[in-house]
Amino acid sequence: MKQNPLSFAILGTGALGGYYGARLHHAGFSTHFVLHSDFAHVQSHGLKVESIHGDFSIAHPQIYPNMDALPPCDVLCLSLKSTANVQFLPYLHSKLKPGGCVLVLQNGIGIEEEIAEYVGDAAVIGGLCFLCSNKIGPGHIQHLDYGSIILAPLATHSAQSEPLLQRIREALVHAGIDTTINSNLGAARWQKLMWNIPFNGLSVVLRCTTLELMQSEAGTRLVRTLMEEVEAASIACGTPVPPNLIDKLLHTTRKMTPYLPSMRLDFERNQAMEIDAIYSRPLARASAHGHSMQRTAMLRDQLVMLEQGLSTRKSSS
Amino acid sequence: MKQNPLSFAILGTGALGGYYGARLHHAGFSTHFVLHSDFAHVQSHGLKVESIHGDFSIAHPQIYPNMDALPPCDVLCLSLKSTANVQFLPYLHSKLKPGGCVLVLQNGIGIEEEIAEYVGDAAVIGGLCFLCSNKIGPGHIQHLDYGSIILAPLATHSAQSEPLLQRIREALVHAGIDTTINSNLGAARWQKLMWNIPFNGLSVVLRCTTLELMQSEAGTRLVRTLMEEVEAASIACGTPVPPNLIDKLLHTTRKMTPYLPSMRLDFERNQAMEIDAIYSRPLARASAHGHSMQRTAMLRDQLVMLEQGLSTRKSSS
Repeated sequence: MKQNPLSFAILGTGALGGYYGARLHHAGFSTHFVLHSDFAHVQSHGLKVESIHGDFSIAHPQIYPNMDALPPCDVLCLSLKSTANVQFLPYLHSKLKPGGCVLVLQNGIGIEEEIAEYVGDAAVIGGLCFLCSNKIGPGHIQHLDYGSIILAPLATHSAQSEPLLQRIREALVHAGIDTTINSNLGAARWQKLMWNIPFNGLSVVLRCTTLELMQSEAGTRLVRTLMEEVEAASIACGTPVPPNLIDKLLHTTRKMTPYLPSMRLDFERNQAMEIDAIYSRPLARASAHGHSMQRTAMLRDQLVMLEQGLSTRKSSS
Repeated sequence: MKQNPLSFAILGTGALGGYYGARLHHAGFSTHFVLHSDFAHVQSHGLKVESIHGDFSIAHPQIYPNMDALPPCDVLCLSLKSTANVQFLPYLHSKLKPGGCVLVLQNGIGIEEEIAEYVGDAAVIGGLCFLCSNKIGPGHIQHLDYGSIILAPLATHSAQSEPLLQRIREALVHAGIDTTINSNLGAARWQKLMWNIPFNGLSVVLRCTTLELMQSEAGTRLVRTLMEEVEAASIACGTPVPPNLIDKLLHTTRKMTPYLPSMRLDFERNQAMEIDAIYSRPLARASAHGHSMQRTAMLRDQLVMLEQGLSTRKSSS
């Protein structure tokens, strides 16, 4: 029996959701975008993607100003910032088609476990995105580099995710997105954190780009020692990252277009930073395995201090 | 036999040297000030001190535009930034009266040992200043809080410093400066570093005051964990700081007038920061005793990155 193609809901049409959703729509999949502030603009002008692989636009995407209006879909892509998850959680279950799943395209660790509590027996799959993109205007995405996704199912729901994993992978590949499957969600999450923990926090605290960190001896030492801490934590938690990953990531980042990580952009825009997902949750998981991450904890506390300063500036302005 | 009163040379008439030198002069001691950029202004307008203990000024201090012109003195007070020591070192020996000494009123650790190599058999005494003061204009010092000094002689030259220590203490006390003697220079240096390492670096990296750090839970945790690292290093080096010093310093800083540490002011003014004295030297000393200071090393590398950014901004402007 031939199955219907998968339908996708993009919960959060920003730099990341907007990019992947537009690719899926462009490849012919039924794709439904939830937007807030950009809704009116996209309704009039559509979605626009500037990509290193070629620009394209969608004149009339299927868009919704909130979750109430969204039809049930096969794959709910959680692509907003994790700091906003709380507003979406209560809707997830009712917006899943039978046999559907939530695909968590977010940073951090432990979020799939939290989502699972809201979706009954449905599958929850982690999606680790290696993407450099920015939203440069309403409904206007600029794709700078990379774009691959690693799919990693939540182990406690692996029976449900098994039939979906390959289908999602094929859909993404069909949409031009390099996609692989990793059966160890924890290891995959630590792997992503190994980049996020040094580069997101340091780019905020030191007001610098990834390239400036890599061009400085002190900057590279900061990055490397934080990465070593993440590696040790992944081992302590029983979900080790692959060997030689540190050197590989340093090499990749050196070649990368100079880039402001998402946390730096959030900081510049006076928006909430993903401190909880990228720092506090990994610290808590390591701590639960009797492991301390001194440098990561220090960077987290520095970010918390800066965020408090932001809120002070906001309230006094 | 009654001895002549001590004569003092103030090598660097800034926030610290200007304050202590003015107090010594005011108390009747022969005090000779070396100044660079402020020389002409002070020649015309004198030295002015605004102090919480009462304002005073010196209309015609004995001032010198460089070391060549300075007469030999009993006590050479090294009160410039340690980053500028290299210009003064070759002059020290010839500007010492027989039986005189160098009093190192600087931050860091290991500087007395370095000075000793330039002054033959003369005594070298560390002077640890607990002072909140700023230079707010040419020859214009603002004394905000505290002001005590701990004198601690370099052990290898203790025979030479013995006859001087009490006389210097008495002179300083006579000038209204609360002064005590600590026979363990290493322990005294670590004690001062326990404040300098967290507050100087964090106030630069996080662009905040001492009070903002103490009013934030994350900020206080940053300060305390760095202090714990300094305490452990002082023990590893065989020169332990006094017990309960951490709680005492946190308490004192909470009560202190909100204050920008000297490194923060240097950073704001695009001037060299004392990264070597306050971070790299303590790190090297701890490392020589097989002890690592992860958080201190991380803060040092962050400061180095920021200083590189400063020099980039300077060279591009």
